[in-house]
Amino acid sequence: DRGYATANMADPYAAEPKRHHIFQPRSMKPFNAEPPLSLLVDSFITPNELYFIRNHLPVPEVNPEEYELEISGIGIKKEVVLTLEELKTKFPKHTITTTIQCAGNRRSEINKIKKVKGLDWGSAAISTAQWSGARLLDVLKHAGADVEHKDIKHIEFEGLDTDPAHQPYGASVPAEKALDPNADVLLAYEMNGEEIPRDHGYPVRAIVPGVVGARNVKWVGRVVLTDEESHSHWQRRDYKGFSSSCDWDTADFDKAYSIQELPVQSAICVPSDGATVSTVSGAVKAKGYAWSGGGRKIIRVDVSIDQGKTWINAKLNQDDSSIYRSWAWTLWEADIPLPENTKPGTQVEVICKAVDSSYNVQPETFEPLWNIRGVLATAWHRVTVTIE
Amino acid sequence: DRGYATANMADPYAAEPKRHHIFQPRSMKPFNAEPPLSLLVDSFITPNELYFIRNHLPVPEVNPEEYELEISGIGIKKEVVLTLEELKTKFPKHTITTTIQCAGNRRSEINKIKKVKGLDWGSAAISTAQWSGARLLDVLKHAGADVEHKDIKHIEFEGLDTDPAHQPYGASVPAEKALDPNADVLLAYEMNGEEIPRDHGYPVRAIVPGVVGARNVKWVGRVVLTDEESHSHWQRRDYKGFSSSCDWDTADFDKAYSIQELPVQSAICVPSDGATVSTVSGAVKAKGYAWSGGGRKIIRVDVSIDQGKTWINAKLNQDDSSIYRSWAWTLWEADIPLPENTKPGTQVEVICKAVDSSYNVQPETFEPLWNIRGVLATAWHRVTVTIE
Ligand SMILES: [Mo]
Ligand SMILES: [Mo]
Repeated sequence: DRGYATANMADPYAAEPKRHHIFQPRSMKPFNAEPPLSLLVDSFITPNELYFIRNHLPVPEVNPEEYELEISGIGIKKEVVLTLEELKTKFPKHTITTTIQCAGNRRSEINKIKKVKGLDWGSAAISTAQWSGARLLDVLKHAGADVEHKDIKHIEFEGLDTDPAHQPYGASVPAEKALDPNADVLLAYEMNGEEIPRDHGYPVRAIVPGVVGARNVKWVGRVVLTDEESHSHWQRRDYKGFSSSCDWDTADFDKAYSIQELPVQSAICVPSDGATVSTVSGAVKAKGYAWSGGGRKIIRVDVSIDQGKTWINAKLNQDDSSIYRSWAWTLWEADIPLPENTKPGTQVEVICKAVDSSYNVQPETFEPLWNIRGVLATAWHRVTVTIE
Repeated sequence: DRGYATANMADPYAAEPKRHHIFQPRSMKPFNAEPPLSLLVDSFITPNELYFIRNHLPVPEVNPEEYELEISGIGIKKEVVLTLEELKTKFPKHTITTTIQCAGNRRSEINKIKKVKGLDWGSAAISTAQWSGARLLDVLKHAGADVEHKDIKHIEFEGLDTDPAHQPYGASVPAEKALDPNADVLLAYEMNGEEIPRDHGYPVRAIVPGVVGARNVKWVGRVVLTDEESHSHWQRRDYKGFSSSCDWDTADFDKAYSIQELPVQSAICVPSDGATVSTVSGAVKAKGYAWSGGGRKIIRVDVSIDQGKTWINAKLNQDDSSIYRSWAWTLWEADIPLPENTKPGTQVEVICKAVDSSYNVQPETFEPLWNIRGVLATAWHRVTVTIE
């Protein structure tokens, strides 16, 4: 016990941080919440106070003076311990802009088909920030790790957040990704130029660009070089995909593949589903985001108001990253012309779908994507609006 | 002119190699052909004589004694020339197993919706071989290239095959991919342990794993380090994807993204479409391939005979490559139980779809994938069979 255990035994959630009143909570203990979808596209970088929050356990109270990052595992003879000050001063500070998405983003749309286990996320369990910190690779080399060692197959991150039995949150990433200098994996201590807020991993979190949120471990207290995946519940018994024919009795978690890089995704943020919208020059303006995992870049976003019979290309707002290291999302907008005879009060369904730099596309419907945990919900996004 | 021009001016196709009689040609001049689909799954490695053939121009006649590989471009002061012997002896020989797929594979299924421009490929414009050669990176370093030079954005490969106006085939690959040591890009001189057959690029071809066939340039005579994409017709005016609403009048080739890495794909090879099939213990046996570009590994193949209401997991036969460098396909097979009361003569539609290690999925139907060139045809594959 390194003094990080939650102080209040009666209510482990007694010391949670304050949160913005505008959040739409999906659970209170642990706290999980997304901002209003329409606010997401107001800026390329999500403000810290609006960044979606995905906690699996109580937020730990970490004293920065006492914080220790422990590094151990294959090839490290004696565990190496770094203070926060050492992490900030011993290594070059590296900054990247990356989008993090929860595996359960858009689960509510899967729930409409048949109820699954999990938080009922809308489409805003995704956000973008500039993260700064030390490169994982630099830290591991400093710790004396032989990063070429053939037995190192996974890099495990252990959180300082613990369950009532004192078991920490944990996850791992294949070493081939975590140790690739081009993968930009960080032990971050800043979010958008500030100390990382408590809800987002204060003082240190793992940033693994292009990879599902669950492996971007917050409040990292330990890094382990290992020959197998993390034994945590979240690595072994959660965050895996299954076929739509798999139920809780037949799902074989041992054989299923742990979610790492995520597939291509997009959503309409404006207008909101159910909204009444005005037209400008006979067109409806739509805005949204698109993103793909693994660093793949968005190359096209198609928008339709006639059930996909015709599509218009949205205008893309993206950074100048390469097609292999596009960690951040693309914001898009489109002016969608309505048919000339469209009457006030007409209901219109707006649809969007994105294409990434491997020409991966989103599937049309959710039925074939349905899975027991309701993860990986990437079918075409649809909102229905009424013309003013 | 380095003596490679086609000898016979009257018929540039007079000196084409002999081909296996079993091929199903899609065009004769240039020769394009695929093997019978059912033979593809007979072996993980496609025999050289059955490997699909995609030629854009006449097959050049190259005298190995006269062959020269020219290397030039940014940072190379004086063009470097290597003989075939030098390529084979000056560099470590590197061998990889990779699947190459034509961008037009399965175009015939897109043609059923609305006719497109292009060869009417079935599902066998894809094959797998073991390629050996020098690493591109080793050769470029030997040539004195500064591979870290910021202006090097693309690596261009020029073929020795030329059109009637003596313009060569050409294509380029982003430097970030071509120069990545983990991308396993080769200047190959062996195919499955033999000299590369003339139809497949004798004596030297580019192998760019995970990337569309069109960039795996055959008969490579020149490599250029450049700051822009190849100016060839095939890079600039072909091998690009468009939305289904784009026609030849509205397609903006300058703005569209050149196909490089391909999306997740799969097909049923056995039984053949239209076949009458026997059952074993009340089940139909199906076999096929699945593959994804960019080195992504196949993690699941689902097979259905009830229009996708239920799916069974196919058994996967794959190499032990990592999830980031899976260059070769996965062969799969499944015993699909028929409903108990299935009568002889019943027609059954078998469907397959694959999932890759980024959890990318294939889309259900072709309509939204339709594009003017009929490339990137990756919707669920379907064959209809009659139960014996
Ligand atoms: Mo998550
Ligand atoms: Mo091709």
